Amino acid sequence: MLNVSIIGASGYSGAELAKLLANHPEFNLISCYVSEQSLDKGKLLSALYPEHSGLLDIELSPLTEQAFAHIAAQSDYVCLCTDHKVSVSLAPKFLELGLKVFDLSGGFRLADASQYQAFYGFEHPHQALLDEAQYGLAEWYSTAIKDAQLIAVAGCYPTAALNALKPLKNAGLLTELPIIINAVSGVTGAGRKASLATHFCEVSLSPYGLFNHRHGPEITQYLDHPVLFTPHLGNFARGILETIYVQLKEGVTPHEVEAAYQCLADEPLIRLKGENMPSIKGAANTPFVDIGWQQQDQQLIVVVAIDNLLKGAAGQALQCMNIVSEFSPTLGLKG
Amino acid sequence: MLNVSIIGASGYSGAELAKLLANHPEFNLISCYVSEQSLDKGKLLSALYPEHSGLLDIELSPLTEQAFAHIAAQSDYVCLCTDHKVSVSLAPKFLELGLKVFDLSGGFRLADASQYQAFYGFEHPHQALLDEAQYGLAEWYSTAIKDAQLIAVAGCYPTAALNALKPLKNAGLLTELPIIINAVSGVTGAGRKASLATHFCEVSLSPYGLFNHRHGPEITQYLDHPVLFTPHLGNFARGILETIYVQLKEGVTPHEVEAAYQCLADEPLIRLKGENMPSIKGAANTPFVDIGWQQQDQQLIVVVAIDNLLKGAAGQALQCMNIVSEFSPTLGLKG
Amino acid sequence: MLNVSIIGASGYSGAELAKLLANHPEFNLISCYVSEQSLDKGKLLSALYPEHSGLLDIELSPLTEQAFAHIAAQSDYVCLCTDHKVSVSLAPKFLELGLKVFDLSGGFRLADASQYQAFYGFEHPHQALLDEAQYGLAEWYSTAIKDAQLIAVAGCYPTAALNALKPLKNAGLLTELPIIINAVSGVTGAGRKASLATHFCEVSLSPYGLFNHRHGPEITQYLDHPVLFTPHLGNFARGILETIYVQLKEGVTPHEVEAAYQCLADEPLIRLKGENMPSIKGAANTPFVDIGWQQQDQQLIVVVAIDNLLKGAAGQALQCMNIVSEFSPTLGLKG
Amino acid sequence: MLNVSIIGASGYSGAELAKLLANHPEFNLISCYVSEQSLDKGKLLSALYPEHSGLLDIELSPLTEQAFAHIAAQSDYVCLCTDHKVSVSLAPKFLELGLKVFDLSGGFRLADASQYQAFYGFEHPHQALLDEAQYGLAEWYSTAIKDAQLIAVAGCYPTAALNALKPLKNAGLLTELPIIINAVSGVTGAGRKASLATHFCEVSLSPYGLFNHRHGPEITQYLDHPVLFTPHLGNFARGILETIYVQLKEGVTPHEVEAAYQCLADEPLIRLKGENMPSIKGAANTPFVDIGWQQQDQQLIVVVAIDNLLKGAAGQALQCMNIVSEFSPTLGLKG
Repeated sequence: MLNVSIIGASGYSGAELAKLLANHPEFNLISCYVSEQSLDKGKLLSALYPEHSGLLDIELSPLTEQAFAHIAAQSDYVCLCTDHKVSVSLAPKFLELGLKVFDLSGGFRLADASQYQAFYGFEHPHQALLDEAQYGLAEWYSTAIKDAQLIAVAGCYPTAALNALKPLKNAGLLTELPIIINAVSGVTGAGRKASLATHFCEVSLSPYGLFNHRHGPEITQYLDHPVLFTPHLGNFARGILETIYVQLKEGVTPHEVEAAYQCLADEPLIRLKGENMPSIKGAANTPFVDIGWQQQDQQLIVVVAIDNLLKGAAGQALQCMNIVSEFSPTLGLKG
Repeated sequence: MLNVSIIGASGYSGAELAKLLANHPEFNLISCYVSEQSLDKGKLLSALYPEHSGLLDIELSPLTEQAFAHIAAQSDYVCLCTDHKVSVSLAPKFLELGLKVFDLSGGFRLADASQYQAFYGFEHPHQALLDEAQYGLAEWYSTAIKDAQLIAVAGCYPTAALNALKPLKNAGLLTELPIIINAVSGVTGAGRKASLATHFCEVSLSPYGLFNHRHGPEITQYLDHPVLFTPHLGNFARGILETIYVQLKEGVTPHEVEAAYQCLADEPLIRLKGENMPSIKGAANTPFVDIGWQQQDQQLIVVVAIDNLLKGAAGQALQCMNIVSEFSPTLGLKG
Repeated sequence: MLNVSIIGASGYSGAELAKLLANHPEFNLISCYVSEQSLDKGKLLSALYPEHSGLLDIELSPLTEQAFAHIAAQSDYVCLCTDHKVSVSLAPKFLELGLKVFDLSGGFRLADASQYQAFYGFEHPHQALLDEAQYGLAEWYSTAIKDAQLIAVAGCYPTAALNALKPLKNAGLLTELPIIINAVSGVTGAGRKASLATHFCEVSLSPYGLFNHRHGPEITQYLDHPVLFTPHLGNFARGILETIYVQLKEGVTPHEVEAAYQCLADEPLIRLKGENMPSIKGAANTPFVDIGWQQQDQQLIVVVAIDNLLKGAAGQALQCMNIVSEFSPTLGLKG
Repeated sequence: MLNVSIIGASGYSGAELAKLLANHPEFNLISCYVSEQSLDKGKLLSALYPEHSGLLDIELSPLTEQAFAHIAAQSDYVCLCTDHKVSVSLAPKFLELGLKVFDLSGGFRLADASQYQAFYGFEHPHQALLDEAQYGLAEWYSTAIKDAQLIAVAGCYPTAALNALKPLKNAGLLTELPIIINAVSGVTGAGRKASLATHFCEVSLSPYGLFNHRHGPEITQYLDHPVLFTPHLGNFARGILETIYVQLKEGVTPHEVEAAYQCLADEPLIRLKGENMPSIKGAANTPFVDIGWQQQDQQLIVVVAIDNLLKGAAGQALQCMNIVSEFSPTLGLKG
């Protein structure tokens, strides 16, 4: 059994990961931490998530200075379910202590430190770690993930978009035009912190972050193609649906598109649905990426759905941990 | 035209009342206030409620010391959509300035100041005002409302319960057993303040305030009958549904129950539905009280539904203002 | 007072229109019809819509052969809230009887009868009526609407899209590239008929009608510009949100875009919101079209929201009736 | 491995059971049937439930006359997820063929055939089978379940109510007064068949079946105590919450109530929560019964929540199959 600690376990991604680890046959959830200032410190995780009573009756410890050595002594892996900036400050400490770090934040996803001020609002002090960090898009970089010390688990929207688009890009089917990605996320994507934006009576389908959402450059970087990414908040708890508008090169046939997607046909967590359109309901609470598409002349519409907390966060983190540990990538994710 | 000012206009009840006043043919919404500390001061009310753009483009002024004289100079009525404790402190000031005060909080609903510590968590300093305040349950106390200076508009749950039960009580049909009121409210009832309890992903049908909700003594006082009142929060924005379990006296017939409810038959905002059961959908966004009932032997089940922001708050406040002004009680509430 | 009859009053658009008419100061809702086979015939409309008890206690009569003469004798206007094909068959009969016909279906919206087989699934037998029918997009064709006998009230999605795009088109700001319209509608848009697709547990955000929804050619026809229109069903009852991706001509500035929208600045039912993004919540249950936009270089994103039953159906039908009657266009729609 | 067939697999309970069986380490889902008339025959179960693509790609076969022998030849157990009346007709056939029958309908839950006309609307022809059938309330009758041929899996509402109340009854704490059970169920409880009652836009919190719901006599029978059971439909997909009003005998203390519930303390699928109130969110999608309670004098309020499809149907059916097979009762239900 490998021991895993979670930092930032009280949020939605952290709790989802805790649940996966607590049910996993080869990992042992050894400890859960929150910030020293958190009002949740000392509580059981199951007090925050009563649905997990019995499973997650584990105390949320404060991440004091002394805690680091303790975590290092008892853990094989540490998972950061913290804010971007907090992750950037914590990751080097845990790496120095010799731990493998799985970061679920955006703190190490972009290649170039200079982009952080624009998209994350802070100066990134660790260009060397950005160079070293391996992007955790599990189906595409498993070899490199296996040997990395610091895995920057892919963002939720990019996980959907990249799995939907990389097959087309790699097959050389795309024109140079920007790809339009119209995305809708459930409210867990906005985090558990109380705010007017997540108030039950205020949530409503609406776009946000036009032209400047941080997942735009993340998609562009790993797709190596310009995209126009427009996220929306929707009135449901879990799931992401992206409707993607793609211009195919002159002469590209439906058969070629179909063939391009065959690179994913054997991936156990990808479900190719052809002209059956994915939905939030079909993907929510599953570890899968559902991909459907339909073509008319050179216009292709790709529709992709995932669960933002599973494939879009905790599930993919676990998949990366499985890969690093040389387990089946889907162990603990799929029956 | 009569001029009306609202204190606490940024909350759900305040904004609902502002909308009603802005559409009313005889009232003029002259000013809207929030507390001096409010982050919303200086904003337009329609910036908080974009659905009311064009109608409520009125600035939220801070309630400074200087504001009181200004409000008094320009207003005929002042409506308090403030926290209970704030209302208790504001009402005497506005009364002294000669204004009619319509208080939507619970600050003046209970007869006995000594109950406030137990049910509201603060000492009530104004027993004399409690004696003077008129309870604003519009269908039942219109004569007294007409002459009052301080109207304590009835609470949301009590408005539903009292309209459903007073006809039975007054007809002498009830045994002495406590009446069980199982109530479910939409999330606007919990207010607009961001909190984990109103987070989109945390709201779920669940009871709260068992045995000690402040609306229990309010119902008991105005019904003059013991009740066991159990509220729940439900996953919808607006509306209250109460399922009420009543023991009728030996021999009371369905005909007598039907006859008892005839006292409400001509009330324009009461809809007697007999065995057609009310629903949240049927009452939400309406100014009505929907009352249905069904009897088996001496067991009677009464089901009542209202919109918590309209009949349960702002709509009834407006009804009281209409009564005080000797307008039709439903002016501005019903086509 | 002008007398109005509704055919197909039991559906969501029909009932919404009945409500508007019942509250209107100058129209009189004289009769409501359903098909002879309808299980709802003989019921009160308020039995289907208990929220309208007291207001819509009007019987749903079967549309028998004899009913036509009766409707003609007592009505000034007839509103068809019927299926497309039914409208196509009913409209000529009512026109022949001398009535003004307001058709809320798509039966007379497309200019060319030959398009009906492809997009509506039936042969359209009345090219002459298609030529004669006036498209009821109220803000844009009021002069022609005023004199028409047959008004084809605009579709829900096109109402949103055309109000958002015609200012840009008319100002000559668009390139020739197709405009991508990503649209999401609430479930009332799918009608009141029970089906698995509208089952509470099956509804989920998902696209439908890719490349072949009938509102695509409707938008193209009245915009005179190619569009790629992709509708989705969302998990809410009312409202439409469209996120529209527009390529502006080289050199077009934000100032020019802003100026283009000024043609709508004085329209009482259009709310120009600039960079404040519309939402379903902001538009649902209102008669307004909310339009926001944001530009980066030559890429413009326009976001538009309406209530599908009001501005997208019954409200706009009433607006057209007001125009025909030379009332204020917003009479009965706005306080 | 034991082979299991499901009859009526296309409904919500059937599909949930299929999912549990497909993931179970010791059961093999060998075949799925629907009625001969079903429009779903020949489809894959995963075509109806895309969330289970990959897991439930199993064909829905029509239950022809020939199918019975085939089912008998290949199955150890047969599960009836059919309508009550269909179950009553199918169970004897499968019993005759030597199969163990797990019936998820109400067809064999009541002891007395004469009650079926009143509560189920048909004459029950098999009093002998009612005598023989074992009620499948897993925590309470496991010994008898183990040896039964025909298990009448407990109803959803009764599962919640009986687990909440039998400890109090058995400890002798109850007065003879009827117990009031106010219950709210999610829409999956109304089944997958399209109907106006389950239309997304029509669902709303409202009571139904006052005084005559079939789960009333089921609870009374197995509790051996009179109850007044009032179900409501709520606007959520899964889960049941019951708020139960109990009169305790004079002098019964909170300690005695606490002690009474200890009989369930070691049950792995029961979570005793004391004064922490259960919620739909806490129980939905779990196999647990969550029980909380609070007392004031002789008034006790018990609140109980379950997932209607898991503990209230498929999960408890699986628990019964585990018991019959002498597996751990929670195998395949809990990590």
